[in-house]
Amino acid sequence: SNAAALGSNIIGVGVDQELISAVPSHNPTFVARNFTDAEITYCRVQPSPASSFAARWAGKEAVFKSLGVKSSGAAAAMKDIEILNNADGVPSVQLHGEAKLKAEERGVVKVLISLSHSETVAIAFAQATTSA
Amino acid sequence: SNAAALGSNIIGVGVDQELISAVPSHNPTFVARNFTDAEITYCRVQPSPASSFAARWAGKEAVFKSLGVKSSGAAAAMKDIEILNNADGVPSVQLHGEAKLKAEERGVVKVLISLSHSETVAIAFAQATTSA
Amino acid sequence: SNAAALGSNIIGVGVDQELISAVPSHNPTFVARNFTDAEITYCRVQPSPASSFAARWAGKEAVFKSLGVKSSGAAAAMKDIEILNNADGVPSVQLHGEAKLKAEERGVVKVLISLSHSETVAIAFAQATTSA
Repeated sequence: SNAAALGSNIIGVGVDQELISAVPSHNPTFVARNFTDAEITYCRVQPSPASSFAARWAGKEAVFKSLGVKSSGAAAAMKDIEILNNADGVPSVQLHGEAKLKAEERGVVKVLISLSHSETVAIAFAQATTSA
Repeated sequence: SNAAALGSNIIGVGVDQELISAVPSHNPTFVARNFTDAEITYCRVQPSPASSFAARWAGKEAVFKSLGVKSSGAAAAMKDIEILNNADGVPSVQLHGEAKLKAEERGVVKVLISLSHSETVAIAFAQATTSA
Repeated sequence: SNAAALGSNIIGVGVDQELISAVPSHNPTFVARNFTDAEITYCRVQPSPASSFAARWAGKEAVFKSLGVKSSGAAAAMKDIEILNNADGVPSVQLHGEAKLKAEERGVVKVLISLSHSETVAIAFAQATTSA
């Protein structure tokens, strides 16, 4: 008989924080290198674009950590981690390139993410899940 | 044969941070509108009531995020998210009203929460789980 | 027929933050009492040992919270929570002593952890999981 596989396993979690002033979102080269077009479009129309870019940057770092991948800040393929909000404002993660391959190798089917920022600090939490 | 459904699925996570000074817990109208009687009783006897109120405020925001509900701060029904500590000091979440309905719609059976505060900042993490 | 038990249940989450300046990692007695030899060896060779010790301290607090154990800072057996990084830089938790017993009582088989620090603040997230 077939037993349906139910439930999921968390294989990694990631937390990150960034000083908003430390993420150079006023630098077009930095932005173009590390954020996707859709992310840039989203952040530019937020009340505080600098905060939104910093929160996404923290999110990308948190996703790398949840995947068990050593990130080296701008040296990592930050653009491979795309974080977009749905119509309800809930952020979701799309993986591309090397990050997607690494996730697939580990059986990851979903990465959950949450972002938060105060006036000065952005924090993010990510959780990588396999189907069981 | 019957295979028992085991395990659980995380449907959402939420992280939030608040400057303790930004949560007006000295304002009785604000407190009465956003915290339940049991929460108020708990926070009032803590070493730093302002920190405890701010941590719970961050917790309520984190729970909304974990449920995939757009919160708008005081405009949301913050009182529908009740965070109380058990005898071991472990915080647990009780949902009421609209928040409870929204959780039930999504199949959420449990929301786990953790809170932390420093001298100036409160942070919270929440995780919404379905039975699988 | 046998249906393999799949999936896992999260029984608790923990978040913690510490001001790096508030963790007295320059004090050898404090360090020897609260960190294992392997943790000390690791932290001492990091770019900022004070930040690494503070992040681990936050991590130990977060693990206690995820286990539903009331921690009282230095009064708790912080050394029972050992956080070491693997070759990829991913931190993992080993439990010893009372913390291990408490985890076993609750059926915890794994505690996931993530750490982060800025110039001034260390934060940590932990998640305690049972096999289902």
